Amino acid sequence: MKNFITTQDWSMQDLQAILDYAKNLKKNKFQDLLKNKSVALLFFNPSMRTKVSFELGIQELGGYAVVLHPGSDAWPIEFEPAVTMNENPEEHIKEVAKVLSNYCDLIAVRAFPKFINLDEDFEDRVINSFAQYATVPIVNMETITHPCQELAHILTLQENLGNLRGKNYLLTWTYHPKPLNTAVANSSILIASKFGMNVKLLCPSPDYNLHEKYLEQAKKNCEENETEFSITHDIDQAYSGSDIVYAKSWGSLKYYGDAEKESIERHKNKHFIVDEEKMKKTNNAIFSHCLPLRRNVKATDGVMDADYCVAIQEASNRKHVQKSLLTNLLKGK
Amino acid sequence: MKNFITTQDWSMQDLQAILDYAKNLKKNKFQDLLKNKSVALLFFNPSMRTKVSFELGIQELGGYAVVLHPGSDAWPIEFEPAVTMNENPEEHIKEVAKVLSNYCDLIAVRAFPKFINLDEDFEDRVINSFAQYATVPIVNMETITHPCQELAHILTLQENLGNLRGKNYLLTWTYHPKPLNTAVANSSILIASKFGMNVKLLCPSPDYNLHEKYLEQAKKNCEENETEFSITHDIDQAYSGSDIVYAKSWGSLKYYGDAEKESIERHKNKHFIVDEEKMKKTNNAIFSHCLPLRRNVKATDGVMDADYCVAIQEASNRKHVQKSLLTNLLKGK
Amino acid sequence: MKNFITTQDWSMQDLQAILDYAKNLKKNKFQDLLKNKSVALLFFNPSMRTKVSFELGIQELGGYAVVLHPGSDAWPIEFEPAVTMNENPEEHIKEVAKVLSNYCDLIAVRAFPKFINLDEDFEDRVINSFAQYATVPIVNMETITHPCQELAHILTLQENLGNLRGKNYLLTWTYHPKPLNTAVANSSILIASKFGMNVKLLCPSPDYNLHEKYLEQAKKNCEENETEFSITHDIDQAYSGSDIVYAKSWGSLKYYGDAEKESIERHKNKHFIVDEEKMKKTNNAIFSHCLPLRRNVKATDGVMDADYCVAIQEASNRKHVQKSLLTNLLKGK
Repeated sequence: MKNFITTQDWSMQDLQAILDYAKNLKKNKFQDLLKNKSVALLFFNPSMRTKVSFELGIQELGGYAVVLHPGSDAWPIEFEPAVTMNENPEEHIKEVAKVLSNYCDLIAVRAFPKFINLDEDFEDRVINSFAQYATVPIVNMETITHPCQELAHILTLQENLGNLRGKNYLLTWTYHPKPLNTAVANSSILIASKFGMNVKLLCPSPDYNLHEKYLEQAKKNCEENETEFSITHDIDQAYSGSDIVYAKSWGSLKYYGDAEKESIERHKNKHFIVDEEKMKKTNNAIFSHCLPLRRNVKATDGVMDADYCVAIQEASNRKHVQKSLLTNLLKGK
Repeated sequence: MKNFITTQDWSMQDLQAILDYAKNLKKNKFQDLLKNKSVALLFFNPSMRTKVSFELGIQELGGYAVVLHPGSDAWPIEFEPAVTMNENPEEHIKEVAKVLSNYCDLIAVRAFPKFINLDEDFEDRVINSFAQYATVPIVNMETITHPCQELAHILTLQENLGNLRGKNYLLTWTYHPKPLNTAVANSSILIASKFGMNVKLLCPSPDYNLHEKYLEQAKKNCEENETEFSITHDIDQAYSGSDIVYAKSWGSLKYYGDAEKESIERHKNKHFIVDEEKMKKTNNAIFSHCLPLRRNVKATDGVMDADYCVAIQEASNRKHVQKSLLTNLLKGK
Repeated sequence: MKNFITTQDWSMQDLQAILDYAKNLKKNKFQDLLKNKSVALLFFNPSMRTKVSFELGIQELGGYAVVLHPGSDAWPIEFEPAVTMNENPEEHIKEVAKVLSNYCDLIAVRAFPKFINLDEDFEDRVINSFAQYATVPIVNMETITHPCQELAHILTLQENLGNLRGKNYLLTWTYHPKPLNTAVANSSILIASKFGMNVKLLCPSPDYNLHEKYLEQAKKNCEENETEFSITHDIDQAYSGSDIVYAKSWGSLKYYGDAEKESIERHKNKHFIVDEEKMKKTNNAIFSHCLPLRRNVKATDGVMDADYCVAIQEASNRKHVQKSLLTNLLKGK
C-alpha cells in the first residue's frame, strides 16, 4: 500500500507514469476505474479547486466521495499521542483513521499549518498521523506541501514546453496581505528540481527563505540531475533567462507565530508583484500560479490575462492528475 | 449556448417546452439524460428546496452535482474588474468562472442582494459576472429574480387551472420581521405577465413598489399579451375577482440600505397577512407561496392548510422543472 | 409504512432480521437495493461516523443521498404548532416534512436535545414532528435515543459472543468535561434488555440515573425476558462478573438546564474512567463505546488499545446495519 503525502517518496518515473495516464484520462474522461471505491475527503481548511476536482473526478470514474469538515460538520480531532483529552478535541486520530479506513478505500486530507509553532507545523503531523493509523492509502490535499498541485503543474509545463530537462525555472515570492502557507512554494522547488530543471528561488531577503528541509531536498534533487539550484533576492537577475515563472506568496519563517512583526517586513515588498515588465526580461517564459490569486497584488491583470499565463490550464489539470493518482493508488494503474 | 438567468431572455414558447418536458419527467423520473454531465451548485446564501431539488434531480438523471459555499467552504470571490484585491476576496470571478467551466458542464448560482446599495444589487453582478467569464451555461438559483421558482409556479398553476390566459393574478405583499429580497416578487410579475394573465400588484404604499426595471418588463409583457397590469394599495379591491393569490414579503426599496428606517414602515403593515377572510373575497382563488413561509405572519395556518393552498405542490415541482431545464441547456431537449 | 425512531417500536425478531441481513450486506457490499431511492440526511448537530456511513452506505446500494444542516446551509425550522412565527425559524416543520417527502423516499434526522427544558427534550419533538407530517419513513440518526447505534452494538456483540441471552451487560457512566446527551445510554439499556441480557447500570449517584421513561422500558424488557435489571453506584460490584462493558458519559438530569451546578457534581467523578484494573474484575468482558471518545478521560489508552475493545468494530458495523435498515424500510427486505 502506497501513500501520496510528498512527491519525495516517489521516483520521477512513477510520477511520470501518473502524468502519462492523466493524459489518457483527459481524453477518455469517463471510465469505471473507481467503481465501488469510496474516498473520504477531509477538509480542515477551505478549498475550491481541490473540493470540486476531487469530488467530480471520483464520480467520473464511478467512485463515491464523502466530504467532511472536522471541527464544523464533524468532531474536532486530537493528534497528540497518550494525552488526557481535556481540551477541545472530542476524539483521537487513532479512532478517526481506523473508522474511516473501515468505511472507505482511501482518505484524502487538507490540513494547513497553524502558524503558531514552526517545528510542530513542519512535522506535518495531521497527515502523518492519518498515515500512521489508517489502513488505507492517504492522499495529501495540501498540508505543508501540495503534491497534487505539483502533478498538475508539471503536466501543464510538459503540455506547453515538452521535455522539461534543463529548463530554467523561477519560483518568485509575491506579496499578499496575509502571511500564507509555504506549501505550494515548497512543492514548487521539490518538483521542479525532481524533473530536471535549473531552479531559482527569488524572495525579498534571507528572512523569506523556505524551510531548510525543503531547500535541502530540492538541492539534492538538482545534484542528482546535475542541474543548478540557487537563491536570489535580485529581481532582474532572477527573471532574466527564465523559461518558467511560478509565483507564490508566503509568510517569513523568521517571524513564524508573530504575525504582527512579520507583516512589517512583508509590507515592504509589494514590488515583487509579477507584472508585464518583469515578464519581458524572461526567455519568453510561461507564467503560472496555483490559485487562488489576488489580482493586482500577486500578479497584474496584464500577466493573468496574457497568453503566456497557464494558471487556468494548471487548475484544470488538477482533476485529471488526481483521477490518475487515485487510480494508481487503488488499482495499481 | 444558452443561460437561464432571467425568463425575460426566453420566449413563452421555449419556457412552455421546458414545462411540457417537466411533465414527462414527472412521470418518468429516472432517465440517463445527464449521464456524465456535472453541475457546480454555488450557494452564496442558504437554501433547502433549491439544494435538495437540484442535487437529487441531477443524480436522478445520471449526472454529478458538487455543492460549494464561497466564503465558507470555498474562497470568497471578487467581482469588481481591474481592482487591486486588497480586501477580503482571495480570488477573482475571472478565475473562478473559468476553472469551474473546465471542471463542470454547467454552473448554477444562488446570490442574494446585499441590501446596501440598490443600484449595485439590481445590476445582478454576481450571476452576470459568471455569465461573462464562464464558458458553460449559467443557471440562476435566485439572485434578484428567481426564474426556477417561476417555472415551478407556472407548472403548478397550469396543473390546477389549465390554460392561464386571461386569469386574474394577484401578487400580494405580506409582512415579515426582516426586509427580504424582492427576487420572487419580481419573478412573480414577470412570469404571470408573460403567460398572459391580468396582473395586479398589491402592496402597502408606493414605498413598497417593486423596482422600475421589473415593473416595466411586466407592463411590456402585458401589453404584448393585451392584458392588464395594475398596482393597488387597497386590500379588498385587490383580492376581489382574483383567480390566483401569490404572496411574498419584501423590504421597501425606498429605504434600501437603511434597515432601521425601513422597519418602522414595514411594521405598520402586519395586516397584509393572507387569511381566510381575504381569500373569501377572491374568485375561489388558489393560493401559493415560494416557501419558506412564516406561518401566522405571512399567511395564517387556515390558509396554509386549506385545499386551495398549492405551495407544497409548487415546491415539489421545483425538482421536475429544474431537471427539464438542465436537460434543455445541456442536451438541447 | 414504518419509521425507525426507537427500537421499542420494533420486535426483537424484526430487529434480528435487520442484523441478519446486515451480515449478508457485509459480505456483498455492492447491491442495487436502493437504486433510484433517495434519502435526505438532516443534521441539526455534527457527526462523523453517522454522516460517512449513511452517505457511503446509500451510494453503495445505488441510492442518492443529500445532506442538509438546517440553520446553517438550510433555513431554521419551527416545530411548535399553531404559533405566530416571529422568532428565528423561517419555516415550519409541516412544510419541511411535506416538501422533503415529495423530493425523497426517506428522511433521516439527527437532532440532539437542547439541554434547557428536560420535559421538552424528552418529548423528542423534532423527530416526532417529522414523523407526524412526513409521508415517507423517518430514521433516527440520534436524538434522545440512538437506535442505529443499538443495531451496530448488538451486531458487534453477536459477532464476538454469539447468543447474547443471559449475558451480564454493564453500562457504566464515565466522566466527560461537558454534560452530554443521554441518548446512547438510553439506547444501551433498551437494546441490551430487549436482547435478553441481565442489565446493570452503574453511575455515580441517583442524581445520574437515566430518565424514568427509559428505565421503565428497560425493566419491562427484562421482565419479559426473565432477566435482571439493576442500578448500582458501586464500581467494584458493577464490573464483577460482567461479560460486556459499555461506557457512556452523560449530564445529570437532576440539574438539567443548569450546566454550572451540574458540573460541580460531575467533576467529582473522574474516577469512573474505564481502565485496565476495572476491566480485570470482569468475566473477561469485551469493552465498547459508541465514539467519539476522549482517551484517558472516558477510557484509558490501555483499554482502548486492548484486544477486548470492539469500539472500532462497532463503528464499522454502523454502515452495514444502516444499509440493511434502509433496505428494510424502502424495500421491505
